[in-house]
Amino acid sequence: MPKLDLDAVPQTNATGYPPEYASQVQERWYRRLAPPGRLEDFGVSHVELKPGAWSAQRHWHEEEDEFVIMLAGEAVLVDDSGRTPMRPGDCAAFPKNDGNGHVLINESDKSCFFIAIGRPAASDCHYPDIDMHLENGRGFRRKDGSDFDWG
Amino acid sequence: MPKLDLDAVPQTNATGYPPEYASQVQERWYRRLAPPGRLEDFGVSHVELKPGAWSAQRHWHEEEDEFVIMLAGEAVLVDDSGRTPMRPGDCAAFPKNDGNGHVLINESDKSCFFIAIGRPAASDCHYPDIDMHLENGRGFRRKDGSDFDWG
Repeated sequence: MPKLDLDAVPQTNATGYPPEYASQVQERWYRRLAPPGRLEDFGVSHVELKPGAWSAQRHWHEEEDEFVIMLAGEAVLVDDSGRTPMRPGDCAAFPKNDGNGHVLINESDKSCFFIAIGRPAASDCHYPDIDMHLENGRGFRRKDGSDFDWG
Repeated sequence: MPKLDLDAVPQTNATGYPPEYASQVQERWYRRLAPPGRLEDFGVSHVELKPGAWSAQRHWHEEEDEFVIMLAGEAVLVDDSGRTPMRPGDCAAFPKNDGNGHVLINESDKSCFFIAIGRPAASDCHYPDIDMHLENGRGFRRKDGSDFDWG
């Protein structure tokens, strides 16, 4: 059946971020929908941001487009152009290599929900606000190439 | 600014279907969001189905995955497994080459809205219920290869 039973898809708050940058995404709970949907062309994440949670550290990808659709609740989209409220039905596009770091932050007192579309990161990802860089989608390093203290 | 101004994106009900199969999609009004969002990895359509309208003729693609997210209103997803109501927040995945033709039909008396994700059709698309076939994504023919009367 093509309709997905979202409740049957495991929700996780896993992150590959080093401990010093992980706290903002600790209450980002997501479901990967491409595996149960048997999709290969793109990834789909169903994301719940609990109050205070961030979608990611503010970032932009060199070679992967991203697209977000708000489903419920409200978040603030922060990028180089400022702060933009995102409400149910709102859509945002993050074209690859545009150099405009973006993040969604739930500043409300209720969970918000959105869908994020994009291919798995296989290129460099840039984090303008913090001392972190993702090289070729393989792993996080400081901007001078040194490793984090993974604790 | 990454947030898209949907009202500024032109809405169209254009279809490449031949006249005899076009009436079901006449009140399918859609906006292509990848061009204004400057996305290349996948296409995004913001679709309004007015009462009675179909998302497409029931079909499946050989080489393109599709994914749908309901935003507002209600539609019925019709596929080989039967009829499934789709309500706001519901998601459905249509993996390439699965042989399961699908369509969303608005049987309600109000418009419904959804987002559809997928790459442009560049492969064969199969229509199990009607005498139509899309060959290599290039154009519609009858199943015996003959042309339609385009009027």
